[in-house]
Amino acid sequence: MIRTVTIIGSGNVGYHIGRAIFRLDGFDEAADRYIMQNFSRDFTKAQYLADEVYSEATDSILDIEPNNDLYIIAVKDDAIEDVAAQLSAAGLTDELVVHTSGATPTTVLAKYFTRYGSFYPLQTFSRSRKANFKTVPLCIHANSNTDIEALSELATQLSDNVNFINDEQRASLHVAAVFVNNFTNYLYQVGEQLLQQKDVSLDLLRPLILETARKVQRHSPINMQTGPAIRSDHQTIERHLLYLQSQPEIAALYEHLTKRIMDKEAVT
Amino acid sequence: MIRTVTIIGSGNVGYHIGRAIFRLDGFDEAADRYIMQNFSRDFTKAQYLADEVYSEATDSILDIEPNNDLYIIAVKDDAIEDVAAQLSAAGLTDELVVHTSGATPTTVLAKYFTRYGSFYPLQTFSRSRKANFKTVPLCIHANSNTDIEALSELATQLSDNVNFINDEQRASLHVAAVFVNNFTNYLYQVGEQLLQQKDVSLDLLRPLILETARKVQRHSPINMQTGPAIRSDHQTIERHLLYLQSQPEIAALYEHLTKRIMDKEAVT
Repeated sequence: MIRTVTIIGSGNVGYHIGRAIFRLDGFDEAADRYIMQNFSRDFTKAQYLADEVYSEATDSILDIEPNNDLYIIAVKDDAIEDVAAQLSAAGLTDELVVHTSGATPTTVLAKYFTRYGSFYPLQTFSRSRKANFKTVPLCIHANSNTDIEALSELATQLSDNVNFINDEQRASLHVAAVFVNNFTNYLYQVGEQLLQQKDVSLDLLRPLILETARKVQRHSPINMQTGPAIRSDHQTIERHLLYLQSQPEIAALYEHLTKRIMDKEAVT
Repeated sequence: MIRTVTIIGSGNVGYHIGRAIFRLDGFDEAADRYIMQNFSRDFTKAQYLADEVYSEATDSILDIEPNNDLYIIAVKDDAIEDVAAQLSAAGLTDELVVHTSGATPTTVLAKYFTRYGSFYPLQTFSRSRKANFKTVPLCIHANSNTDIEALSELATQLSDNVNFINDEQRASLHVAAVFVNNFTNYLYQVGEQLLQQKDVSLDLLRPLILETARKVQRHSPINMQTGPAIRSDHQTIERHLLYLQSQPEIAALYEHLTKRIMDKEAVT
């Protein structure tokens, strides 16, 4: 059982994971389970997180103490390997070290540690919105069954949606998440921009945005596709392109997506 | 006050509007307010709707009776003008005739009727999902203030989100709706496809899809943009494109949307 956890990183992911673990029933003095240390390059941030979870703050990775049960690296992708190297320099070798990244394979940790894995919460976090961790899909992986079980024991307390996801699967999730989150949000931006040009509020589209997301909670999006492209309604498509003619970049995106929807239909 | 309504069309929009009006408090015999007729080219469909709202079914527009307070044309865009011409042939001239289309200007009705307008519910309807009409944005327009007031009286009973939207504004809404609904749903499809290739369920992305839509319910999407493109994280973008190299069409879409997000950032 994982009793002692150290969290490296003070971004949204480190913050939400740290708080979620700290608030677990049975993660306390009585059960002898603790968050030991919080690291951030910025000591104020480390202190802020440490105060929330009764741990110790540090801004030096070399001060990270070895021999705890789990080290969670929750830093930007391009800093993971550097942090791993420093943790190794701090004396970690046989401890279980995981990162929270969707994009980085766990094998980058293999150079430094004998036990490694991932602990990847697949949700978009922001400091200002409360995360209900119970509904966040947690993707876990480790290079031994014993460690997978240990991570699973902790993960299933945190979330009702725990998944065993290897590096290759996690890579697919990360790319797919860009499509359904980042790119989707960009389409919302385009929508707002088009309305602003005519003094119309995004409030008129907000229910549609929400309903579009709700519809695919139980159905497959392929069965929920509507609109002029899937209907091959060329008259409406032409009218929309005419409407967009003074905004060539938005028109080009409209054409690209319309073509994809039409082609897909032709293939399937 | 609008007391008698005729509905032309038996698709999702006609169905949901008809039911919503029928269920209004005070839309009954006691108040002398009725849905008079339901038209569909398919008599079975017309009958089905008519039975639900205690009206008369017809599959012939020439049987539509004149002198009612409101005629709602809820048919496909390319059929609106034909329906209008037939209603005119059926004897309608000074009656208030509206259509429910986002794409078609109300002026197509001006050739046939002296009083015309629009009654456009901005939501994605499906027969299988109950629509809470109270939350559906209703966009209304008419060519006289008296008729705008009459439509408004009816609309505000149906929905808490009634908006006065002219033809030009409605055109912007219709294009914007394609971006936030049709194109967004297509991005969900791409996400599901990428996961299926690695035997991963869309269930892992469903909470993210919903949270992405929820975030913009109170915030502007421009402030909610995350991901490698907005961070100019070229390393992750390159890794994703490498991942997609065997799927050139998905890669091309990834590049197009990434470029748009980056360019936008550069401009603003």
